[in-house]
Amino acid sequence: MADVSNANLVTEGDARSVAIGEDLLAPPDQFARYETDVTGDYQGRARAVTRPRNVEDVTAVVRWCRENHVPIVPFGGNTGLVGGAVPSPQRREVIMSLERLNRIRDIDALNGVAIVEAGCILEDVKTAVAAEGLYFPLAIGSQGSCQIGGAIATNAGGLNVVRYGMMRGLVLGLEVVLPDGRIFRDLRGLHKNNTGYDLKQLFIGSEGTLGIITAAAIRLVPAPTQIETAFLATASVADMIKLFQRVRKDGGETISAFELMTDAVIKRVCATEEKVRNPLGKDYPAYAIVEMSQCGGTSLTDWFTDYLGTLIEDGLVLDGTIATNGTQTENIWAMRERIVESQAKMGVYLRTDLSTPISTMAEFIARGTALVQQIAPNALTLPYGHVGDGNIHFNVMRPLDIAPDAFAPVIRRIETALFNLVDEFGGSISAEHGIGVAKQAAFEERIDPVARDLQILLKRTLDPENLLSPGRIISEKWFCNAVQS
Amino acid sequence: MADVSNANLVTEGDARSVAIGEDLLAPPDQFARYETDVTGDYQGRARAVTRPRNVEDVTAVVRWCRENHVPIVPFGGNTGLVGGAVPSPQRREVIMSLERLNRIRDIDALNGVAIVEAGCILEDVKTAVAAEGLYFPLAIGSQGSCQIGGAIATNAGGLNVVRYGMMRGLVLGLEVVLPDGRIFRDLRGLHKNNTGYDLKQLFIGSEGTLGIITAAAIRLVPAPTQIETAFLATASVADMIKLFQRVRKDGGETISAFELMTDAVIKRVCATEEKVRNPLGKDYPAYAIVEMSQCGGTSLTDWFTDYLGTLIEDGLVLDGTIATNGTQTENIWAMRERIVESQAKMGVYLRTDLSTPISTMAEFIARGTALVQQIAPNALTLPYGHVGDGNIHFNVMRPLDIAPDAFAPVIRRIETALFNLVDEFGGSISAEHGIGVAKQAAFEERIDPVARDLQILLKRTLDPENLLSPGRIISEKWFCNAVQS
Repeated sequence: MADVSNANLVTEGDARSVAIGEDLLAPPDQFARYETDVTGDYQGRARAVTRPRNVEDVTAVVRWCRENHVPIVPFGGNTGLVGGAVPSPQRREVIMSLERLNRIRDIDALNGVAIVEAGCILEDVKTAVAAEGLYFPLAIGSQGSCQIGGAIATNAGGLNVVRYGMMRGLVLGLEVVLPDGRIFRDLRGLHKNNTGYDLKQLFIGSEGTLGIITAAAIRLVPAPTQIETAFLATASVADMIKLFQRVRKDGGETISAFELMTDAVIKRVCATEEKVRNPLGKDYPAYAIVEMSQCGGTSLTDWFTDYLGTLIEDGLVLDGTIATNGTQTENIWAMRERIVESQAKMGVYLRTDLSTPISTMAEFIARGTALVQQIAPNALTLPYGHVGDGNIHFNVMRPLDIAPDAFAPVIRRIETALFNLVDEFGGSISAEHGIGVAKQAAFEERIDPVARDLQILLKRTLDPENLLSPGRIISEKWFCNAVQS
Repeated sequence: MADVSNANLVTEGDARSVAIGEDLLAPPDQFARYETDVTGDYQGRARAVTRPRNVEDVTAVVRWCRENHVPIVPFGGNTGLVGGAVPSPQRREVIMSLERLNRIRDIDALNGVAIVEAGCILEDVKTAVAAEGLYFPLAIGSQGSCQIGGAIATNAGGLNVVRYGMMRGLVLGLEVVLPDGRIFRDLRGLHKNNTGYDLKQLFIGSEGTLGIITAAAIRLVPAPTQIETAFLATASVADMIKLFQRVRKDGGETISAFELMTDAVIKRVCATEEKVRNPLGKDYPAYAIVEMSQCGGTSLTDWFTDYLGTLIEDGLVLDGTIATNGTQTENIWAMRERIVESQAKMGVYLRTDLSTPISTMAEFIARGTALVQQIAPNALTLPYGHVGDGNIHFNVMRPLDIAPDAFAPVIRRIETALFNLVDEFGGSISAEHGIGVAKQAAFEERIDPVARDLQILLKRTLDPENLLSPGRIISEKWFCNAVQS
């Protein structure tokens, strides 16, 4: 447990000196949940934990920290996967949890805009918006606990990107506390505004390193009135990529999700997770959950059923089922949603979040699997992902012939090999999870020198004292070398 | 005509000294087309005009200009409406036309990505992409001459934003020459990539002030296979906004355009433009062109025809027609497309590009019209725009009782009154055209101080010598005051 009684730390007394009520500081016996990430992979120690109630509190804490040279790490729903929100082990950082900034300030159905505070839970926002007949399309596994502020700070992706894009495209305005304590605010929620540089873009995806997002104007879309969910099988991953390209051509933006899972993934999740089963009752090399949705229009069911028939006649789809009720839909999605739990049952595993050009995904998976086999012949590779975005979570489970303690260095070797393969394919080592601390070294190793200089320049310009989330995205070595040069 | 023989200017000899072939410099007798904008409202004098053939040429010219402290103004299709690409009158700037960088480097249909050089004409890109069965959705009046680089640098909007978003959302990667001559390049065309700050966002919409865009990876979408175009009339602008909201709810993203025109606009364009006529044969207070489109799926014609019937039965739509062939579609669109020509026939007029919350558009138009009446009682107001984006082009024609020479100050008074009204509505004074020089003063007057500081900080950080398009977006006074402070 961290201790806030040391005079060098943020204490209640210190906080009061800048008019921060003592109730902004969490008692040390509550630190634990801020010091370990959701995966358990990252742990640290907080110098203090602040829980501001509003943007003025955030400003006051930032000012205090700046004056006292105490770094701050903004903290949302703690669902990030790259260790970005967990304090470093040196107990030097103040965690700032946005959990109390959780008001939905406004839902303006006529304009398709909601004003939400950073600490709002994504699921709560989706529910509130749905009650007004609208839809907020961001859909990610952690939506029951992730916060809007974190989803914006990490430019979250998820299941519906193929149709609605990533979080960046769903943000119409932001309220941000800058490292100097000033507030940048534009919550007008205009759909179109080309007056000068689009400043909000700086903060979206900046992982808390350039400013603390306290509220956002988000874009709402019409709620789909027809949704079809199918579970389809093909003879290979390559055929599944072909299937995506065909459905995309014939069904356009009606595709709202296209989630690839290999045979190994489906076998694994059905074996370990209670009540999860393959509705096709037979094994195939590759599967996908295909969700088609539209707002209004004539019957999507009729069209999709006929269309699926054609795909089966053509031999591209070997087998498939369309959900005809909510339970079937849930059962289909359970195969995808419970992969994370299923993987966690093997203890530590390699989690990746890669993207490549869509057309090369099958080749990437084949070559990635071969690489894993070379390094750890009995390891189970579980590739699954968002075909429409070229995004593969290519994960690797510990084989029984490697002891849990011995697996960590093997994970690093496999990860390095996969990242190098990603480079060869012109892909990204972090399609949607971000850099945080987990991928900082790999990011630094492969970034183009001009891009690196621009990355550092932005950080140094907006946060010259490296006050916010130091070491995330921009390593402290990068930052300091830049200062010295 | 500018003269390049003065030793202080960029001369062929100077250029050669940094290995720039003489064919990069336009002869002075060709300067004219670079010195006046498309509207004729902005004119200046170029110190020289360079026409690089490739990114290396751009780099060489930028380096030469930087060493010699000569400002550069990137120049695309010369279709901008805020005077951003025209040289200033002082003959101090080198115009850099990107017209020779006009190769479509690649169209990758499987991945939905094209790599295009900055000087490619938008229409050419759309045509080339269509030949591969795909669609590049940006649709603007000037697409026959505007260039991709300019469309990115100004974050162009246009007719299809309601469905596909603005240019920003269609860019997957950029190649940019920075003010120091280095090249920032990421043309992998990945659909998802969260590795660090998204640097391309800095240059999109920066109007040539932060870097010179030389190529882009753009996102292609499935081509709509069914398109319905209707021309609908309602009893008021307020009813037209209601109609948009209803169709949006019932038809969702199937709406690909929803273009409002008031009675005055339709009367004007039909009166001045040959072969343009109102197909309804009767006058109504407000009209809209409504385009619905989808890719594959069930019959859009059946659904839309039935749906329109319901809207008429309900009394919300007073009259309407759906085009049943290409000629009818063209005739409907001609009313919208020829507004600009029609307006220009009255000589100088007030052109605006405002946005407000969608729900307030009717009230804004009513109050704006009343304001114009107060200032110039006989002036004709022509409000039209993109309802789905809250974007109104609220234009004002010279009344016959004001002489052409006397109208300029009246235009300024009306513009000021409208901009103040926009502020009252929480809107934007430039929804899609940008700032350039035309709106620089108005932008400066109303920007929030924190946002202003961030705007200047970005400019100073990325272009510390104010080499690129000085005075556009950031006034030289802003820039210099910031340097001194």
